Amino acid sequence: MISSAQNPKIKRIRLLQTQTRSRKKEAAFVVEGIRLVEEAFQTGQVPELVIYTRDLDERGEQLVGRFHEKKVVCEEVSQEVLKAASDTETPQGILAVLPLHPLALPAECDFLMIADEIRDPGNLGTLLRTAQAAGANGLLLSPGTADPFSPKVVRAGMGAHFRLPILNCSWEEINLITNNLTIFASDMEGDTRIWDADFTQPLALILGGEAHGPGEHSRDLADIWVNIPMSAGSESLNAAAAGAILLFEVLRQRTKSRPS
Amino acid sequence: MISSAQNPKIKRIRLLQTQTRSRKKEAAFVVEGIRLVEEAFQTGQVPELVIYTRDLDERGEQLVGRFHEKKVVCEEVSQEVLKAASDTETPQGILAVLPLHPLALPAECDFLMIADEIRDPGNLGTLLRTAQAAGANGLLLSPGTADPFSPKVVRAGMGAHFRLPILNCSWEEINLITNNLTIFASDMEGDTRIWDADFTQPLALILGGEAHGPGEHSRDLADIWVNIPMSAGSESLNAAAAGAILLFEVLRQRTKSRPS
Repeated sequence: MISSAQNPKIKRIRLLQTQTRSRKKEAAFVVEGIRLVEEAFQTGQVPELVIYTRDLDERGEQLVGRFHEKKVVCEEVSQEVLKAASDTETPQGILAVLPLHPLALPAECDFLMIADEIRDPGNLGTLLRTAQAAGANGLLLSPGTADPFSPKVVRAGMGAHFRLPILNCSWEEINLITNNLTIFASDMEGDTRIWDADFTQPLALILGGEAHGPGEHSRDLADIWVNIPMSAGSESLNAAAAGAILLFEVLRQRTKSRPS
Repeated sequence: MISSAQNPKIKRIRLLQTQTRSRKKEAAFVVEGIRLVEEAFQTGQVPELVIYTRDLDERGEQLVGRFHEKKVVCEEVSQEVLKAASDTETPQGILAVLPLHPLALPAECDFLMIADEIRDPGNLGTLLRTAQAAGANGLLLSPGTADPFSPKVVRAGMGAHFRLPILNCSWEEINLITNNLTIFASDMEGDTRIWDADFTQPLALILGGEAHGPGEHSRDLADIWVNIPMSAGSESLNAAAAGAILLFEVLRQRTKSRPS
């Protein structure tokens, strides 16, 4: 049992929790709590390390047992050590260190989302979760967007990290990847209401950041500007809320246009 | 100039920032930052007190001048005092104490949202902002929902508090207020896809909490259960994202059904 927060394994976890640089250098990130670690197992992730406390419930114990069978290193730690390793105030008894190798985009993409400087980790995580639920092929993150593998984003993503390709891109790469797609950007001043736009064609949706909306690079890239109609007195929506409305409008139009 | 955080006015602000009980007892709440305080002015709110620091920019100074003209008490404070009064790490130079008297619902409501134990302040604030943008008549909060006038909810609401009626209700009151409306609740197992539901009729939408979805009282109240279709592997959405999708599906259907 690990009972010291100075243990090198624990110190490494703390670095992975707090530093984007460490996550990049070590190509690893951390997920916490039974629900997320269970999702990691179900989607075939192989942790480098799992740590857990003795007071884990039955569901948690089974989970540790399953990782054990797969030869994953599972170490019991004291409550204090888990707390030291955790990003949350009240850790849920289990935490896994996972290799960070992003899922690849499918060969043919017809539904991508581009996050243009989404800086709020909660918004980015919610966006990941929503994009996966809407059936997007992947999320491209522009320079200046929050680190998608930081603890807050991972928590808000609720497992989307295991199912949705998430790529940090330069604008040149975004341009290349979306080359064959119609690019829609959303803005108060967009000409076309989202309900009137044709989202059944192969497309990428640009979602602009909280402060300034789509930036200069997005303006160069966008083919069609759309707006989300709003009632009087409203100027903007939360980025994750706007993303949800856009993503599910795509799903609605595509579901409707398919023969049932 | 107030230069002590022990000043009774400042101590009162801290209580209003931190305690639901104080906000209720004093019927007052706090908004921070130029943008929100400006919105308060524009929507005709009359603060009990405005405090500001000397380094306010021109826009902020004009705002203080306007409140001054309206005989609102405006007090300069030191940076330290503003920081002590503020709920944020980096206060933006101005803060206002506003009377808390909820806006009344219109006599005829045809679009209400019911928040059933939404506990996350960020989600609740985003929901308020989105409900106002979608043109809802008001938001009814069930027992167990977060305090809508807490600092985090106010920040995430981005001014919706000044435009949208927000009512803390018992379930009996919710029942009474929504008596003439068709009540839709959303759930994975709902029979009807949101796109197939008729949201043009006078309605109330129930949005369930992050942990358990719509609860027992919602189950008693709901007339029609709808689902938000999702791609394989997704089980749920963030509450604020689900709310945004539902609210804007109502707006979409109603806009489409109106002669243009």
